[in-house]
Amino acid sequence: MIEHIYSELKIGDKGYVEKTITETDLYIFAGVTGDFSWLHVNEVRAAQGHFKTRIVHGMLLAGLISNVVGNQMPGVGTIYETQNMKFLKPCFINDTIRAQTEVVELLDSGRVRLKTTCYNQHGELVVDGEAIVIPPRRHVIKEAMPEQDIGGRGNG
Amino acid sequence: MIEHIYSELKIGDKGYVEKTITETDLYIFAGVTGDFSWLHVNEVRAAQGHFKTRIVHGMLLAGLISNVVGNQMPGVGTIYETQNMKFLKPCFINDTIRAQTEVVELLDSGRVRLKTTCYNQHGELVVDGEAIVIPPRRHVIKEAMPEQDIGGRGNG
Repeated sequence: MIEHIYSELKIGDKGYVEKTITETDLYIFAGVTGDFSWLHVNEVRAAQGHFKTRIVHGMLLAGLISNVVGNQMPGVGTIYETQNMKFLKPCFINDTIRAQTEVVELLDSGRVRLKTTCYNQHGELVVDGEAIVIPPRRHVIKEAMPEQDIGGRGNG
Repeated sequence: MIEHIYSELKIGDKGYVEKTITETDLYIFAGVTGDFSWLHVNEVRAAQGHFKTRIVHGMLLAGLISNVVGNQMPGVGTIYETQNMKFLKPCFINDTIRAQTEVVELLDSGRVRLKTTCYNQHGELVVDGEAIVIPPRRHVIKEAMPEQDIGGRGNG
């Protein structure tokens, strides 16, 4: 697990995740959120619409950004305060998305401003945005779980 | 399906969805997005953190807002341009969330500004925010799918 506390962060620090977004991801996301817009789950209607085929929910890409914020940069224990997003290009089924965060400002009171972006496999900026997040103030990873007996001697 | 085209919308128009967010929803969302922060999927560590138990991903609630935008108000065919969110309160497992959109401004070039909110079962504002969306300019629901033979005479 990656954990950057506030005092360790500096402007320009980056983290990312990459994922090929499958039809399965889209349909699971539709099921959990209930967002069954024909833009997303109806190929017949979508074929006659602006994008000519189904597109991935923008908020699924927002979930990838949430992944980066909470697991890479700043990392585990980080709490979201705000997220602003512009959806600039559609994401199609089987597009490979790189979600990235970059520290752009260290704010007072332990908050951090991040630039948050999603790029596709063509290098196009699909989602642009900014987040304000609260990274942990102290390291907690080693404190939280009981120590494991790595030696594995067993009970017998 | 609910479809409001731009020319039909007026300030104050509202739509909503409500859902009890289960542990299953949280874990499916974690699987699709890869956001395995201990805030969300580790009860042992979360119990020692700020919220004392696992919390639901904020972006899952954003997905509910996406549902309202794309299926209720303005409704099907609406395309997202921007979404801003403030996460004001945590959402816990089994909280019941009402996600709501309200038309607050009709912009030039067919865009609409929405107030987007999520409330929990205690009436607390969990997520506040604003979106700019592009509703359809003309009704397409009746045009897109081939007409069904309601009479059902069959082929035999």
